[in-house]
Amino acid sequence: MAEGGAALKVARVAPGRFDFSAAAGPIPVEVIECARSELHDWRRSGTPVLSLPFTGDAFREVMTETEAYLRALLGIPDNYRVLFMHGGASAQFAAVPLNLLRGGRRACYLDSGYWSGKAMAEARRYCSVEVAASSADTGYDRVPELPSLRSDAAYCHIVANETVNGVQYHAFPESGDVPLVADMTSDFLTRPLDITRFGVIYAGAQKNLGIAGLAMVVVREDLVGSADPATPGILDYAVQARHASHYYNTPPTFAIYLAGLVFKWLAERGGIAAMEQANRGKSERVYAAIERSGGFYRCPVQAAHRSQVNVCFHFADDALTQTFLAAAQSEGLFNLAGHPSVGGVRASLYNAMPEAGAETLAQFMTAFARRNG
Amino acid sequence: MAEGGAALKVARVAPGRFDFSAAAGPIPVEVIECARSELHDWRRSGTPVLSLPFTGDAFREVMTETEAYLRALLGIPDNYRVLFMHGGASAQFAAVPLNLLRGGRRACYLDSGYWSGKAMAEARRYCSVEVAASSADTGYDRVPELPSLRSDAAYCHIVANETVNGVQYHAFPESGDVPLVADMTSDFLTRPLDITRFGVIYAGAQKNLGIAGLAMVVVREDLVGSADPATPGILDYAVQARHASHYYNTPPTFAIYLAGLVFKWLAERGGIAAMEQANRGKSERVYAAIERSGGFYRCPVQAAHRSQVNVCFHFADDALTQTFLAAAQSEGLFNLAGHPSVGGVRASLYNAMPEAGAETLAQFMTAFARRNG
Repeated sequence: MAEGGAALKVARVAPGRFDFSAAAGPIPVEVIECARSELHDWRRSGTPVLSLPFTGDAFREVMTETEAYLRALLGIPDNYRVLFMHGGASAQFAAVPLNLLRGGRRACYLDSGYWSGKAMAEARRYCSVEVAASSADTGYDRVPELPSLRSDAAYCHIVANETVNGVQYHAFPESGDVPLVADMTSDFLTRPLDITRFGVIYAGAQKNLGIAGLAMVVVREDLVGSADPATPGILDYAVQARHASHYYNTPPTFAIYLAGLVFKWLAERGGIAAMEQANRGKSERVYAAIERSGGFYRCPVQAAHRSQVNVCFHFADDALTQTFLAAAQSEGLFNLAGHPSVGGVRASLYNAMPEAGAETLAQFMTAFARRNG
Repeated sequence: MAEGGAALKVARVAPGRFDFSAAAGPIPVEVIECARSELHDWRRSGTPVLSLPFTGDAFREVMTETEAYLRALLGIPDNYRVLFMHGGASAQFAAVPLNLLRGGRRACYLDSGYWSGKAMAEARRYCSVEVAASSADTGYDRVPELPSLRSDAAYCHIVANETVNGVQYHAFPESGDVPLVADMTSDFLTRPLDITRFGVIYAGAQKNLGIAGLAMVVVREDLVGSADPATPGILDYAVQARHASHYYNTPPTFAIYLAGLVFKWLAERGGIAAMEQANRGKSERVYAAIERSGGFYRCPVQAAHRSQVNVCFHFADDALTQTFLAAAQSEGLFNLAGHPSVGGVRASLYNAMPEAGAETLAQFMTAFARRNG
C-alpha cells in the first residue's frame, strides 16, 4: 500500500482498449503500478509484498489501514464488523445460512435472477428456502417487490445487482425485524449505502475490490457468534471476527493488500458518491445508445430496474450478435458477450472502467446500428 | 506465466537479506520478476494478469499449464484429480471429513504436533476422532508410530511436517485399505512423493507454492463424489473437480497463475529431486551448527524425525533468545522467532530459501555461540 498519506501515482492508461468482462473488473492502473513497485519490496521494508507474513506487524498495518479505508468510504457504524474472508460470494452462499439460521429452519429469498438462484440452491442444503417474491415470470425484467415477510424467517436475502440479467435494486426492500442480507459482489462500493438497513452485506473482490480469493463481509455485531456447530471455521463469522486479535487461519494477504490500494484509489477520487455519479454517467451513455437505436438494440430490463454496472441488451436480429462482438473487439472493446444462459451483449461498467470506455462503446454502438440497421 | 517454452528470466537476489518466516515462504525472485512484467499485460494479450477473467481462454490456458506442470513435477497418476481450491489447510481441515466420511462416523488422526491438533479440532465438528497415535507425551520430539488401524476408520490423517514443532515424517505410515490423508502445507514439493500411497494430499500455497488464498488438493478419483449433503460447494471435491469443464465459482486466479510460475521455476531447477537435495543441504547446515555448539543450542527433536523445512531450537539459557533474534536481524536474518506456543528459534527453509540463507544463518549461529557461550 502506498505509504501513509502519500497519494497513489497517477498512471497513464493505455489508450483505446477497454475490457467489459463481467467476471473480473478492471483494476485501476494506479493500483497496478503501486503493486508493481512493491512486489519486490513493501514500503521499503525489504520484504516483497507477495510474501508478507500474516503474523507480522507489516501485514497487521495493511489490515488496519484497509479496514479503516473501507469504514471511512462507506461510513460503516461501530456496531458492524468488517471481515476479510477466503473465497467469494459462492462461499458466502453457504456461510449466510450457517451463521444466520440460529436454530431457525426457514429463510426468505428474493429471486431477481441467475445469482439469486445460485444462492438459494446452496441455502437449500441448510434450511427451507421460502421464495418470498420472484420476477422469473417476467423473465427477470425487474427486481421483485417484497411482500410482507413471514416473521419466522431467519433472514431475508437479496442479490443487489444481477450481473447476468442486468437488474439492480435502486431501493432496498424493507424487511422489518428480519435481517436483510445482500450479495453485493457486483455493485459493492459503486454507490453510497445506508449500512444500518442491512444485517449482512457481502461481496467477492474480483469486480470492484481487486482480485478473486477475497470476500468482504460487513455484518452487524449481534449476528456474529451463533453459527451452526457444523460450520467450517473458515466460514464462521465469529471465528473470522477474532482475526483482529487472533488469526484462525492465514488470510488472503495479497488480495487484502490490493483491496486496500483500491479503497485508497476510491478515496482519492472523491469516494463512493463520486463513483456513483460516474457510474450513472457511464451506464446512461450505453442505455442512451440503446434507446436511440430505434429498436435495433433491445434492453429486456424495465427502465427503473436497469443495472448501472451490467448493461445487458440484445438484437432484434439475433444473428447480428457475433458480428457485433467481433467488430467491437477489432475496435478495442473486449469481452462484451452476454452470459451463456441469456446470450446477447453485456457491458460491465465496474468502478475502474473509465468514462472513456463507456463513451467509446456508445459511439461504436451507434455507428454499428447505422451500418447494420 | 512466461510464455510457452521460454524460461523465466534469471533475476539477481538482493544480497544478504534472508526471511525465515514460517508463515509465508519466500517467493523466487524470478517468479516475482515475471509477475511484475505481466501485471499490466499478460503474455502481450493486453489484459493485466490481475484481472484475467476466469471464464476466458487466457485463464483456461493458465489453469491447464499449471496443472500440467504440477503433474509432471510430482508424477501424479491419471486416477488422481488436481483441485485448485480457495482457502488453505484450515479450509481442508473441514473439507476432509465432509468429503471422506462417506456416511462413516469415525476417522483416525495421528497427532504429531500443533497442526495435528488444529486438524482434529475441526474434524470433531463432523465425526468421532480417534487419536490412533500421539507423540504428545514426549513433547512432540518425534512423529508417532502408526499402530494397527481400526478398519472402520473412514480415513487416516497425518500432518506431514509440523512447522511449530519441527518434526517431519521421513517415512509415511502404512494405512492399508484406509485412505491416507496428508496435510503437506509446509513440505509439498520439497521432496519426491509416491502419490499412490495417499488418498488425499493437500497444501496451502503460502509456503512453497506462492501466496495465501489457494489450496492445492490431489485426490484419488474414487474419493471424489461422496461428500456429505451439507458440504458447502466451495469445499466439495466433486463440485470443484468439475471446474475443468464448468466452474462452480470464481477460482483464485492470480494465486493459481503465481503457483504456475513457481512450478515452472521448480522444473527449470531440476524438479523436486533437486529441491530435496538442496533442502537437505540447507537443513543439515543449520542442524550441524546446533550440534557443534556443544549444547549452547538445543534441538528438542530426535535426529531421525527432524524437519528439513522448519528447524526449531532453543537455548540452554532462554534469556538469550531475544538477544539472538535482535542480533540476527541486524545481520539481515529476519523472522527467526519460534512459534509463540513453544518459543525459541525457528528457521524455515522452504524451497525458495537460497542455500546462501542457510549458510549465512549457520555461520551467524556459530559466531553467536562463540561470543555468548
